[in-house]
Amino acid sequence: MRESIRPETRFVDLPAGFAMKRGGVLYGARIAYETFGELNAARDNAILILTGLSPDAHAASNERDATPGWWEGMVGPGRPIDTDRWHVICVNSLGSCKGSTGPASVNPATREPYRLDFPQLSLEDIADAAAYTVRALGFERLACVIGTSMGGMSALALLARHPGLARSHINMCGAVHSLPFSIAVRSLQREAIRSDPDWNQGHYDEENYPRRGMLMARKLGMMTYRSAEEWDSRFGRARMEPERRAPAEPAPFEPEFKVEGYLEFHAHRFVRGFDPNSYLYLSHSMDQFDLGDSCGGTAAEALSRIRVESALVMGARTDILFPWHQQRTIAEGLGAGGADVEFLPLDSPAGHDAFLVDIDRFGPPVAKFLSVGW
Amino acid sequence: MRESIRPETRFVDLPAGFAMKRGGVLYGARIAYETFGELNAARDNAILILTGLSPDAHAASNERDATPGWWEGMVGPGRPIDTDRWHVICVNSLGSCKGSTGPASVNPATREPYRLDFPQLSLEDIADAAAYTVRALGFERLACVIGTSMGGMSALALLARHPGLARSHINMCGAVHSLPFSIAVRSLQREAIRSDPDWNQGHYDEENYPRRGMLMARKLGMMTYRSAEEWDSRFGRARMEPERRAPAEPAPFEPEFKVEGYLEFHAHRFVRGFDPNSYLYLSHSMDQFDLGDSCGGTAAEALSRIRVESALVMGARTDILFPWHQQRTIAEGLGAGGADVEFLPLDSPAGHDAFLVDIDRFGPPVAKFLSVGW
Repeated sequence: MRESIRPETRFVDLPAGFAMKRGGVLYGARIAYETFGELNAARDNAILILTGLSPDAHAASNERDATPGWWEGMVGPGRPIDTDRWHVICVNSLGSCKGSTGPASVNPATREPYRLDFPQLSLEDIADAAAYTVRALGFERLACVIGTSMGGMSALALLARHPGLARSHINMCGAVHSLPFSIAVRSLQREAIRSDPDWNQGHYDEENYPRRGMLMARKLGMMTYRSAEEWDSRFGRARMEPERRAPAEPAPFEPEFKVEGYLEFHAHRFVRGFDPNSYLYLSHSMDQFDLGDSCGGTAAEALSRIRVESALVMGARTDILFPWHQQRTIAEGLGAGGADVEFLPLDSPAGHDAFLVDIDRFGPPVAKFLSVGW
Repeated sequence: MRESIRPETRFVDLPAGFAMKRGGVLYGARIAYETFGELNAARDNAILILTGLSPDAHAASNERDATPGWWEGMVGPGRPIDTDRWHVICVNSLGSCKGSTGPASVNPATREPYRLDFPQLSLEDIADAAAYTVRALGFERLACVIGTSMGGMSALALLARHPGLARSHINMCGAVHSLPFSIAVRSLQREAIRSDPDWNQGHYDEENYPRRGMLMARKLGMMTYRSAEEWDSRFGRARMEPERRAPAEPAPFEPEFKVEGYLEFHAHRFVRGFDPNSYLYLSHSMDQFDLGDSCGGTAAEALSRIRVESALVMGARTDILFPWHQQRTIAEGLGAGGADVEFLPLDSPAGHDAFLVDIDRFGPPVAKFLSVGW
């Protein structure tokens, strides 16, 4: 099984017998993490980042690993999440394939990869594993928990299940649960993988790999991570350069427009870099998550019981996957619980990925919040 | 090859040697059509309807065929397109599989189905074949050409290429060309079919049929035909009834939410009812179409050279496939050409399919336009 682990990745072993919310117990599981910036003497400058579905723990480059991270523009010295001031911990989600234990990991009971024998994954498990990780690193009180996309959901689960663990919260493009359009998108992504004969009920290998299914799943993802408006101005109806259209006499219906080439490029870059079973588990856990159900009431009640001193809730008006009214719900709920909340639905054309790519808009409010707001 | 032809469908033979815009010539091709309502003595009450990608010519039930049509609420006695007054002709598009000649039809040169030997299809071919059809039926001047979705594109092609053929025009959820998001959607739909091993480069049969690819293509279509807003209120996070979830102990990742069941239901209803190769050809022709290119200038120039006395251009604000700013472009362009244009971007939650399902909003303006506006 493919695992992509960066040299600076470190690990925390979960307790033997880590019980999963929906049943099943993990033995010998671990969480991969990286840190950025120094811990201060008071040990009160730690920030935890919970990621979206696909990122690893390598949020940014640093002196030990110069490879740019997935949030390079946001995390680092002088950046909005300023590592000259903050000790940033980014964890790879439980169930992922980037160092933390997931379906591609070896099941100690069988010495074979879990594949579909991995227990059902929930965002609550991801949250609990992250909470265990920071406590194992010695933190009972974080300055802030930051969650983006799926991480925005896991962060709410963490705050609800681990009261007092964080003083403040930044939620970007997150939600209290998935709505039907995003469920449909992810259901179809999973169907693309599951319909690929090479998926083989999870028993693929390097030779027989569900490449076509993963390509389609990623393309469908890209279509919901960005916005039509951005693509109109970026691609319009431009055709691909002839030399990028192979073969010279293309088969019928081969990609022709630049937007098709863009999807091809990004999908091919992703397809071998993420374990398909892990993708299925994480994707499914997003559909299942419901903060209200998780806490035994409505989402608004659950949010109002979360105790943070302050919160910054951000979204993009062009986000079709986590529409900004979902972030308004988070802001209102946290506010009802007494937090000092700032809600920023930003006019970014970048869609759901705005928190990743539109640092010009998303960075300054983060910097300001972290300098004065907590 | 599957052809679904209703009993009241009639045919017009295209001229022997029907030359296709992008090369290739059809022999023995025909266009399927149905009519609704009587032709008046002056022969000036004929309306032509050009359809979206999948409908047949059976727009509505009538005394000869009681089966409800695809636009049952809009066409009929006392309906917005009132067949007590109008003689309505609905044609099945060239390239479709509902009676008109397409990739599933027998190629007279080989006595085998065309499959991928069907020449490349363009919306201009569909428009020319429709124009030939109405002329063969004896009409040199139609009261109105109505086009919906893809038919809104073909209608503009028809008006541009056949000046004087129509006095007025109704365009619903149409466009002068496809933008990147809709190109991406259709490209991925085609990829789902082409990636299905049973597609077999177009050489499927009833036994070996690209069912999984067609299911995914249709689901992706449904996701862009409706709106997230409609689904939020209609499905929310409701689960499917247990009896609809088969088997009793579902495999991992089987559909669970109502929105997934809805997509399954509609996809299964469609998958065997439309020829996959025909779907590929029609889908591709929508991406390729550009009214400006077609007329040798910009789309605005092409629109301004269209001569109709009046036009009604309608869209839905929740349409993500043909966003309403594309209908604004049509309205402005036709207006620049001197037509008396009404532009109605309606606040319908029904997305792109609003013209089909939101008759309450789309019907009255159509009725009004046809009673006074032309």
